[in-house]
Amino acid sequence: MAKGLKELTSRSVDYSQWYQDLVLKADLAENSAVRGCMVIKPYGYAIWEKMQRVLDDMFKETGHSNAYFPLFIPKSFLSKEADHVEGFAKECAVVTHYRLKNNPDGTGVVVDPEARLEEELIVRPTSETIIWNTYRNWIQSYRDLPILCNQWANVVRWEMRTRLFLRTAEFLWQEGHTAHATREEAEEEAVKMLGVYEKFAKEFMAVPVVTGVKSANERFAGAVDTYTIEALMQDGKALQSGTSHFLGQNFAKAFDVKFASKEGTEEYVWATSWGVSTRLMGALIMSHSDDNGLVLPPKLAPIQVVIVPIYKGEEQLAKISERVAPIVAELKAKGVSVKFDDSDNKKPGWKFAEYELKGVPVRLALGNRDLENGTIEVARRDTLTKESKPLEGIAEYVANLLDEIQANIYQKALDFREEKTTKIDSYEEFKARLDEGGFFLCHWDGTPETEELIKQETKATIRCIPLEGEKEEGVCMVTGKPSKQRVIFARAY
Amino acid sequence: MAKGLKELTSRSVDYSQWYQDLVLKADLAENSAVRGCMVIKPYGYAIWEKMQRVLDDMFKETGHSNAYFPLFIPKSFLSKEADHVEGFAKECAVVTHYRLKNNPDGTGVVVDPEARLEEELIVRPTSETIIWNTYRNWIQSYRDLPILCNQWANVVRWEMRTRLFLRTAEFLWQEGHTAHATREEAEEEAVKMLGVYEKFAKEFMAVPVVTGVKSANERFAGAVDTYTIEALMQDGKALQSGTSHFLGQNFAKAFDVKFASKEGTEEYVWATSWGVSTRLMGALIMSHSDDNGLVLPPKLAPIQVVIVPIYKGEEQLAKISERVAPIVAELKAKGVSVKFDDSDNKKPGWKFAEYELKGVPVRLALGNRDLENGTIEVARRDTLTKESKPLEGIAEYVANLLDEIQANIYQKALDFREEKTTKIDSYEEFKARLDEGGFFLCHWDGTPETEELIKQETKATIRCIPLEGEKEEGVCMVTGKPSKQRVIFARAY
Repeated sequence: MAKGLKELTSRSVDYSQWYQDLVLKADLAENSAVRGCMVIKPYGYAIWEKMQRVLDDMFKETGHSNAYFPLFIPKSFLSKEADHVEGFAKECAVVTHYRLKNNPDGTGVVVDPEARLEEELIVRPTSETIIWNTYRNWIQSYRDLPILCNQWANVVRWEMRTRLFLRTAEFLWQEGHTAHATREEAEEEAVKMLGVYEKFAKEFMAVPVVTGVKSANERFAGAVDTYTIEALMQDGKALQSGTSHFLGQNFAKAFDVKFASKEGTEEYVWATSWGVSTRLMGALIMSHSDDNGLVLPPKLAPIQVVIVPIYKGEEQLAKISERVAPIVAELKAKGVSVKFDDSDNKKPGWKFAEYELKGVPVRLALGNRDLENGTIEVARRDTLTKESKPLEGIAEYVANLLDEIQANIYQKALDFREEKTTKIDSYEEFKARLDEGGFFLCHWDGTPETEELIKQETKATIRCIPLEGEKEEGVCMVTGKPSKQRVIFARAY
Repeated sequence: MAKGLKELTSRSVDYSQWYQDLVLKADLAENSAVRGCMVIKPYGYAIWEKMQRVLDDMFKETGHSNAYFPLFIPKSFLSKEADHVEGFAKECAVVTHYRLKNNPDGTGVVVDPEARLEEELIVRPTSETIIWNTYRNWIQSYRDLPILCNQWANVVRWEMRTRLFLRTAEFLWQEGHTAHATREEAEEEAVKMLGVYEKFAKEFMAVPVVTGVKSANERFAGAVDTYTIEALMQDGKALQSGTSHFLGQNFAKAFDVKFASKEGTEEYVWATSWGVSTRLMGALIMSHSDDNGLVLPPKLAPIQVVIVPIYKGEEQLAKISERVAPIVAELKAKGVSVKFDDSDNKKPGWKFAEYELKGVPVRLALGNRDLENGTIEVARRDTLTKESKPLEGIAEYVANLLDEIQANIYQKALDFREEKTTKIDSYEEFKARLDEGGFFLCHWDGTPETEELIKQETKATIRCIPLEGEKEEGVCMVTGKPSKQRVIFARAY
């Protein structure tokens, strides 16, 4: 059976293996010959492109322009912001030479020792330093502000334990870097872009993220405040899915970026940076998919509708094709991406399994009897249900169904998150229940020490201090000291 | 005068300085703190994005999908194809370490000698090797072929003499990599993609490129045949603007990529690769621009129409704005990108100079008297002419004018190229006239030795053996040996 090739480890048996199987078998990505670096395959990349397009439009609507900064960062730049270098030094890919030469022994090539760089270059793990070094020349007066740039790029962080999409040595991302005249404006920008990410996650990825601010321990290296969107995966672990940083004047001070204010004073510039990466692919996959394969929200599915003909012989196929053509045309006119799979070297059953694995939201199947009855079979990927519908008006029906599926996938994920979100007041109970997974709303005394203790003892961290919801006061579950509001603890990817 | 800031060196005084001035002053790109790496500024990047979008659509229309392969290439991979490593070894950025540590003397960070990679990694100069190593696992039988992938990526070639866009250590590009079952199919693909580049250059960039095949000396390292589009710059030098390679089975053999054919035999896979880069920005700038600044073909201009109000006081501005609003709406509805620049901190004269420098194809200016007369001033960037037109129907007029400008820019470049293309039969005359610049159509005996001799003596190279046009036989201008057709010689960037 062809089906065997597509079979996945079940989530309940081994969630982690299920994920790995799914990423490989649905042709999303694979490991490469270079340790920790992935190959993003065409089907996986098509989803990423859809994400990029939507996000890019949202960035532009909020006034941002794209630009491009160098891949390499002089080593000395990294050192200029103390927290920043501390955070990234241990995972830097370092370029030391710029030439190879033939091996004198005749076997291939070796690094030419005479082509050593005067100063080593770091492959960017993030671009604050090179960008703020550039902004120094762009900014003289308040008239040059704000600068609202975004960059789509690859970055490298030398991770020892990698997992496709979730944690890879090289990944693709966007990084916004903005410069402002006032603290207030920069803080507003950081929160605004968090809002963009939240909207994207909820409305396009159908992932009901929680927004909040990170505790000091989990803050970006060099930030004053890190805002985050946190998603809950089906195994009860959290996934940080995007962050937006208020950087204060840290990088302006490190790179001496000042401006003449309206009032004639000289001030350091205020900064933000914000990014989402191919990690979003992991969030998307783990939020919705099941033991049969991917489940994609229609808004990000490369193929939204597939039509499979059930036929014997050329004549039947011709009749079906004739009836399908106007449906395809009508769907396309409605902006629906549709594929009519009339390939004759694969059986319908194989195709059904294939598109299920690939997460195509709606599958239509049309056979000879359907033609006679004026019906068509409509299968939903999200619910795995099938129904027979009239051929008449099917495009309209399917277009509406896609909206319904998008909403249903979101609601299902939201229900799951709410079900797995628990208020806990006792540290004993916290420890006892952590293995269930989920978000735990607990009081915490606000100190890094207490957070670190909890992390050491339980492997759970504070995912965020939520921005929304009730701000109920209480006492820290560990120290009994006062707490202004509950924070979200979870084990995380 | 604000104008001073925008003034460029004139082309006739110093073409190279004019180009440099223009790239900087029009905010297209600048040099970065990293030797040879550029910063692409938002306005320059906006043009590149337009190019990307058009090309990407053309690739997809011709059946290609995007994917992503690692930034790093194990050193041993490069050595596997002999010509390939010969071509790239001397310009490789080499990653040797994966960690920094605090300098024991307390001054910043140093490379951690204990974090040395077992095998050095090369920052990709091009991706044939890593991709063909990947394709080995994707291809078993003829059913897996063809593979039609494209990648948008950054690449690094350690160039010693760099010039913004034209030759930089890091540049952005796309690289298509396809795998085929037959030689014929691969050759067809290479020629097809050359055709895509030609169409893009002519119809979007308005650059009348010549298509042809490279001589052996100028071939891509590892290719059997390299096809090229060659453009002629205003200074009479050629610019290779895109290449498409038929790679034969060279990379399949180097990486042992075989497939079971329909006939049951085991065969090596046939390959192509093809790419265009941010170098196209240089071709675009140098083909059309003048001493006043950029001249952009409307199809690639980020802003196609700018409207500048000429007013005194809020009241006049309000009236003008009211009249402009429907024009903006109408232009947008026609898919025209339009900017109404009502900023009040700059004078109209400053704005005129600014948009001229930035190459905005059409500038509309509307003052109080225009309102009274029902007219509007229309200025064309390509011809630097102005005329007064009725306000009524102006959107329609402007939309047509953009097409006319696109055609005119192309025709102007084509006329220039034809004027600067000369048939020459004597090597003496060739040497005497080379300094005039241009394409020289000459007979050549087909040997690398003769080409090399000419290059040594004149710095001119064979840009291509043209695919189109008459195939007139003759004798080599240097050796007198027989020649099947004229080839194009030129000095080149």
